[in-house]
Amino acid sequence: MSATDQKTDQIWLVEVFVSLKPAVNDPQGLAIADGLHMLGYDEVQDVRAGKYMQLHVAGADKASVESRVSEMCEKLLANTVIESYRFDVRQAQSE
Amino acid sequence: MSATDQKTDQIWLVEVFVSLKPAVNDPQGLAIADGLHMLGYDEVQDVRAGKYMQLHVAGADKASVESRVSEMCEKLLANTVIESYRFDVRQAQSE
Repeated sequence: MSATDQKTDQIWLVEVFVSLKPAVNDPQGLAIADGLHMLGYDEVQDVRAGKYMQLHVAGADKASVESRVSEMCEKLLANTVIESYRFDVRQAQSE
Repeated sequence: MSATDQKTDQIWLVEVFVSLKPAVNDPQGLAIADGLHMLGYDEVQDVRAGKYMQLHVAGADKASVESRVSEMCEKLLANTVIESYRFDVRQAQSE
């Protein structure tokens, strides 16, 4: 990557949410729901457990970052046989 | 709970996001970042791994649900020594 490319790249904060597809058994979610019921939170009807990832990604524009992150989800971040994913891309705040 | 209470209760979809505090080591996130780099996604700068939970909760109004979910996070859903959490409450769609 040339120095010019580097200069035009921005940093994006990507939040990826991976959850089990509705038809897939979720023992972890059931265990969490049981735990909440034991603590007295009877208003909890069901719990589905999933994964949450925050990535910092360099990229020229939002559309290209979205397309790359979509690939990453398909290849590594989610098991698309049993999991679905969605993600959110926004410009990283300079903190 | 009386039949009248039941009638006034609505179902809320709560999304809970738990992530490790910035100072805490995240070997899972590092492993994911390494995996992405090995696949050629060199634009990924860092990855933090966390948990994502979807709850269906009964409650009369949003504020009371928020206060109960905040308790659940403190007591069970997050380990507040090393993790931070945030959540989002909205009315569940009747699907």
